[in-house]
Amino acid sequence: MNPQSVSDISVVALAGGVGGARLIDGLDRVLGPGSLTAVVNTGDDFEHWGLHISPDLDSVMYTLARLSPEARGWGIVADTFQVLKEFQRRGLEDWFQLGDRDLATHLVRSRALGRGDSLTRVTGHLCKTLRVERPILPMTDGPRPTIIVTERGEELPFQEWLVKVRAAPQVREVRFEGATQPTPQVLDALGAADLIVICPSNPYVSIDPILTLDGVMAVLRDKPTVGVSPIVGGKAIKGPLGTMIHDIEGRTPSAEAVAAHYEGLLDGYAVQRGDGFVAPFPLLETNIRIQSTRDRIVLARELLEFSRSLT
Amino acid sequence: MNPQSVSDISVVALAGGVGGARLIDGLDRVLGPGSLTAVVNTGDDFEHWGLHISPDLDSVMYTLARLSPEARGWGIVADTFQVLKEFQRRGLEDWFQLGDRDLATHLVRSRALGRGDSLTRVTGHLCKTLRVERPILPMTDGPRPTIIVTERGEELPFQEWLVKVRAAPQVREVRFEGATQPTPQVLDALGAADLIVICPSNPYVSIDPILTLDGVMAVLRDKPTVGVSPIVGGKAIKGPLGTMIHDIEGRTPSAEAVAAHYEGLLDGYAVQRGDGFVAPFPLLETNIRIQSTRDRIVLARELLEFSRSLT
Repeated sequence: MNPQSVSDISVVALAGGVGGARLIDGLDRVLGPGSLTAVVNTGDDFEHWGLHISPDLDSVMYTLARLSPEARGWGIVADTFQVLKEFQRRGLEDWFQLGDRDLATHLVRSRALGRGDSLTRVTGHLCKTLRVERPILPMTDGPRPTIIVTERGEELPFQEWLVKVRAAPQVREVRFEGATQPTPQVLDALGAADLIVICPSNPYVSIDPILTLDGVMAVLRDKPTVGVSPIVGGKAIKGPLGTMIHDIEGRTPSAEAVAAHYEGLLDGYAVQRGDGFVAPFPLLETNIRIQSTRDRIVLARELLEFSRSLT
Repeated sequence: MNPQSVSDISVVALAGGVGGARLIDGLDRVLGPGSLTAVVNTGDDFEHWGLHISPDLDSVMYTLARLSPEARGWGIVADTFQVLKEFQRRGLEDWFQLGDRDLATHLVRSRALGRGDSLTRVTGHLCKTLRVERPILPMTDGPRPTIIVTERGEELPFQEWLVKVRAAPQVREVRFEGATQPTPQVLDALGAADLIVICPSNPYVSIDPILTLDGVMAVLRDKPTVGVSPIVGGKAIKGPLGTMIHDIEGRTPSAEAVAAHYEGLLDGYAVQRGDGFVAPFPLLETNIRIQSTRDRIVLARELLEFSRSLT
């Protein structure tokens, strides 16, 4: 891989929610047109208020539309919650926070899916309504729910576990059900990529759902692949990952533990300064806390330079 | 029919939208518990934003929940329109005004219908969430769309004709499609009624859809039935009725023209003072403009007294 400028590298970023969206935002601001495709986890998709919710697709889409609240990372900045308040007022389901502007997305998506459109197609349409030009691809068009099997053997759809019961029940296992086919668009994008970036997302519930789709690993093994750690100083940047590493693998949470989970896949790995370890591939030790736009851009540039140096 | 007090008369009110809701509001405030059932037109029901909208059921429900704006008559008082604004911002369908609080109703209804609940059942559930205790019955559980056939032969679902093209195309004919069965609950309520009230609603698109259901006219012919004119001084109180009377029947709009449309059905009829005509049944000449709560109560009382005097 040796394009003249890093902005010409054709990148496919594999992503889940907030962490993924932030790195994709940095890549979006650094890479030229046509050089970035996001392949996004849909294992968290679920139905709420009768609507199809795609939390990770929306986090990436709103971020690229410059609508994400910088700190919160989900939903739309300065959104209102009038519809949710009405559900509360009437004693109806209110455990998942859907904003009013956000709701427009779920309404449009649900109607289109109900008419038989694919998730890929409706995501493209939604992106157009928000003037997002980068392709955002759901990993699959079929339902592929991520199921959390708790220590007590309960099986909970991911969002119910994460939001409804606040990730309290200990995780014994993560299972994926349903569709195993990535879309043709995903396979094409992966096949055409100069570089695969595994975003700082939860490996178990954001990245594994993508990696375990038929044929994905086969393509990735032939591609330069770099990851960014979702762990800083032994703690997850966001979400329940720290506890999950402990509960699922019996390990102390660390950048290294996540890298070990991706065994054989990584050609390079970015970790927080001070989180370095003895690795079978080059490490980029830098700042990977990327809440601000500036930090996102800096990391994206460094990551692309680092990737170019790998071959 | 000779109950001791008018508040003990068991009334079934046949209604469409705003005018019907206002009279039902008056009846609700005058009649005792268990003495009022609303049977409501669903011919205007349609799908919007992928949701099942029941404009007439909601007008009656919000009115009985004391949530209707007194003047406007549809939707919820002081509702916000954040979701609608987002549709506008994104260049999406915005021809029908759905408020945010109102939207909660459509979400709950659509999900329940999608799960196989009947419209009767979900209407009961929605009423419960709004603490409405009077039974509000959709005329049928099946789809029965009212179709406007325009002068040029176009066929438009009613709300599209009324709202999307602002009732501009001249009406040649009104047609009802789909289900012809009233619900068992409707037939039971009609059978048990001491008095049928035909609300001041549009006869063509609000009352006829009910009257033309299988078996309804057969029950009504045996029941004391009174109507309230939707026309005052030659003009419709609300909506396109004036023009429709002209276009469909070739008559000048009047209280008498509407009464003629209900030929053989009425045992009594309330008209605005000054709108009296030579009728084959008793007339109640009074004030039938009932925007205010006070006027609604006065008319409801007068109408019940008048009805008691008929036999």
